[in-house]
Amino acid sequence: MDESKKFLLQEKDIPTAWYNIMAEMKNKPRPFLNPATKEPMKAEDFFPLFSQEASRQEVNDKDSWIEIPDEVREMYKIWRPTPLVRARGLEKYLDTPAHIYFKNESVSPVGSHKLNSAIPQAYYCKKEGITNITTETGAGQWGAALSMAAKHFGIELAVYMVKISYNQKPYRRSIMQTYGAEVIASPSMSTKAGRKIITEHPNYQGSLGTAISEAVELAMNTPNCKYTLGSVLNHVALHQTVIGLEAEKQMEMAGEYPDVIIGCFGGGSNFSGISFPFMRHNFTGERNTRFIAAEPASCPKLTRGVFQYDFGDEAGYTPLIPMYTLGHNFAPANIHAGGLRYHGAGSVVSQLKQDKQMEAVDIPQLETFEAATIFARTEGIIPAPESSHAIASAIREAKKAKEAGESKVILFNLSGHGLIDMASYDRYLAGDLTNYEVTEDQVEENTKGLEKLI
Amino acid sequence: MDESKKFLLQEKDIPTAWYNIMAEMKNKPRPFLNPATKEPMKAEDFFPLFSQEASRQEVNDKDSWIEIPDEVREMYKIWRPTPLVRARGLEKYLDTPAHIYFKNESVSPVGSHKLNSAIPQAYYCKKEGITNITTETGAGQWGAALSMAAKHFGIELAVYMVKISYNQKPYRRSIMQTYGAEVIASPSMSTKAGRKIITEHPNYQGSLGTAISEAVELAMNTPNCKYTLGSVLNHVALHQTVIGLEAEKQMEMAGEYPDVIIGCFGGGSNFSGISFPFMRHNFTGERNTRFIAAEPASCPKLTRGVFQYDFGDEAGYTPLIPMYTLGHNFAPANIHAGGLRYHGAGSVVSQLKQDKQMEAVDIPQLETFEAATIFARTEGIIPAPESSHAIASAIREAKKAKEAGESKVILFNLSGHGLIDMASYDRYLAGDLTNYEVTEDQVEENTKGLEKLI
Repeated sequence: MDESKKFLLQEKDIPTAWYNIMAEMKNKPRPFLNPATKEPMKAEDFFPLFSQEASRQEVNDKDSWIEIPDEVREMYKIWRPTPLVRARGLEKYLDTPAHIYFKNESVSPVGSHKLNSAIPQAYYCKKEGITNITTETGAGQWGAALSMAAKHFGIELAVYMVKISYNQKPYRRSIMQTYGAEVIASPSMSTKAGRKIITEHPNYQGSLGTAISEAVELAMNTPNCKYTLGSVLNHVALHQTVIGLEAEKQMEMAGEYPDVIIGCFGGGSNFSGISFPFMRHNFTGERNTRFIAAEPASCPKLTRGVFQYDFGDEAGYTPLIPMYTLGHNFAPANIHAGGLRYHGAGSVVSQLKQDKQMEAVDIPQLETFEAATIFARTEGIIPAPESSHAIASAIREAKKAKEAGESKVILFNLSGHGLIDMASYDRYLAGDLTNYEVTEDQVEENTKGLEKLI
Repeated sequence: MDESKKFLLQEKDIPTAWYNIMAEMKNKPRPFLNPATKEPMKAEDFFPLFSQEASRQEVNDKDSWIEIPDEVREMYKIWRPTPLVRARGLEKYLDTPAHIYFKNESVSPVGSHKLNSAIPQAYYCKKEGITNITTETGAGQWGAALSMAAKHFGIELAVYMVKISYNQKPYRRSIMQTYGAEVIASPSMSTKAGRKIITEHPNYQGSLGTAISEAVELAMNTPNCKYTLGSVLNHVALHQTVIGLEAEKQMEMAGEYPDVIIGCFGGGSNFSGISFPFMRHNFTGERNTRFIAAEPASCPKLTRGVFQYDFGDEAGYTPLIPMYTLGHNFAPANIHAGGLRYHGAGSVVSQLKQDKQMEAVDIPQLETFEAATIFARTEGIIPAPESSHAIASAIREAKKAKEAGESKVILFNLSGHGLIDMASYDRYLAGDLTNYEVTEDQVEENTKGLEKLI
């Protein structure tokens, strides 16, 4: 009866360094390119956009470990280390021989893993004397996290929030405002990129790509201001490795090692965070773990996109990124997992996928909500619609284990809770949700001509 | 730099017994009375209403410690033990010599302390073969907790939710439905009590008192069905003592002992939970801690109510309870701390207040939201409007310590987070909120004739 449900670490066990997978990849990711010169971007080339330290991390493929500043570890202590949980209720419900574990990142004060990178990004800006920062947010998880971190370090923050979320998810907007951030619905009149799209399409409800363009533009035109991003980039993935590093110690406490590791996939932040620290043992041949990125069927860049250089934003302000992409002007269906509605995957993940170090699956919206409801009723936690993709994938794997009669160890990342997304559950329970598929034709149409960018 | 922020226990440290303060009170609380016969209620008299075990706990004033069933401890493991946190950010902001600690009950999967009693109440019903239960909920925190617990034990649950919350707080309703509960707006046509009030006042937006009447009535008229309540009662306070018992160990880890302990106050569940285990050291003379119940100025039963026998519900279905009360038909102003809008205090707390073992303060709504916003921006956690009363009281005490130049140790209970209450923050930030006071005349008018009930 007195079996462990959770595996808990102490504050002293919060990692002191992030794991930088780029240093240990056999094939390094291709470099970001300056869209004008087509030259590879060096750290200095990122200085106008990001803090210098984040810029250096962005291109660092030499150091396997990068020290976590004391000030960042101090803030991590607000909620870290997070629990590793054995999902005994879910196992019982599925009647599976698999052992299912999840890393519970939902216990963060903003309800998701996004704080892991928001804090160091805000800290580096503060340290370098930056007074203002900008960012964009889709569903609002990244915006909420950065609002909390910026206020802590006394930096002013402007968040461009995708208009449809701004109107449909007022709670997320209120969270940012309660922390003291300025929130602007995107597209807006405050930028050239925003004005252009509003003028051409007055009823446009916004997209992450447009919001990024606006946030970048405002940062470039504001004195002492930098831009920050919550996913896709190498330094973001780096910061998120605290998730996997803690989980590694906790799996050891549980006396097991994962056969399969799963994260939901938008731009890569939480998938990278749970996966990369474990992946290094595959690199050495010591382990042979499978890594699965679970993406929405409506935004399937890893499973159905092309591997090409593309822009990170709609207006084409960002460097060219070597990525699996659906095209930078891809307009994803209005699924409730707003955090996964992004056209591209980060360059490291894209290279790892290319090198078959990891897999990807795409999951229809209804299957994710079914998985979420099962999880809520068996494990007690209502998951974020994004995280539900990882749960659905874990359930698929647990069912396979049952069919094969194999006792697999499955680990997934619960990147956030869904308490601020209940409107989505309402619609699911009312039978109002539907699936969206992206056809090959759509992808072909949307990615046509990308090769000409370089 | 590497100071502890949180004090963390392991699962094995989850208490194995609840502390039953009634066994150690010099003056026991007066008994509940049968409203018809005016006879003191014995355990058996509660059997038609509650599970037998809860009924026995309700009147047990002999045993100081009551064992926590293994099945309940197993479920506590989903989120317990909860962290004790040193509020260094808040201390710094207030520039106070006081050391401020809070017990973070907001990390529960439903976002509040209510699960601590929902789980044992559902468990005892299950164990006794009960198939259906009913309850009421105001803001929705108790209803969400019981929905989660009932589903776990395979019991059907009907929740009467105060109509104004049902309409204004759809997220709370969705949470209960996602866990699988039936939610009915109260007053409803499904009960005599509901029909009566709807007929007389067609636009009545409901109250906790009415919802309790409806839930009790449905339980009494449904086969194999019991009623459950999330506050006020002795067995609820008993279950909540896990909060204080954990906090006691954690304060020891911190090497300090609280001079002041604070909980917000609705019916008493979280205040009792944090306070009672520490209060036993006052009883023995070993310590001299102050205990403060922080209630809304708009619902000030402890600071301005009368100490009288009164009903727990509006229709007068419940036993007569010896309580500080504003009268069972008191209609509290529509403040955002919905969980504190209840006319009476539990019998144990009422006796302790009568015996000067504890104090109470009443706090205006605007001061609570100001405190909440300071807390969010210094400690990173957006608190529930209810919990903000405890924060406001803690801030008052920390300011007093500063004026006196004394290094007091203050401990408060953060009973829940506010992520599902962001509409309230919106209104606060927009300057739309106001204070409500209850006058002596109102209390006198509302409690007139109570003495004739016995």
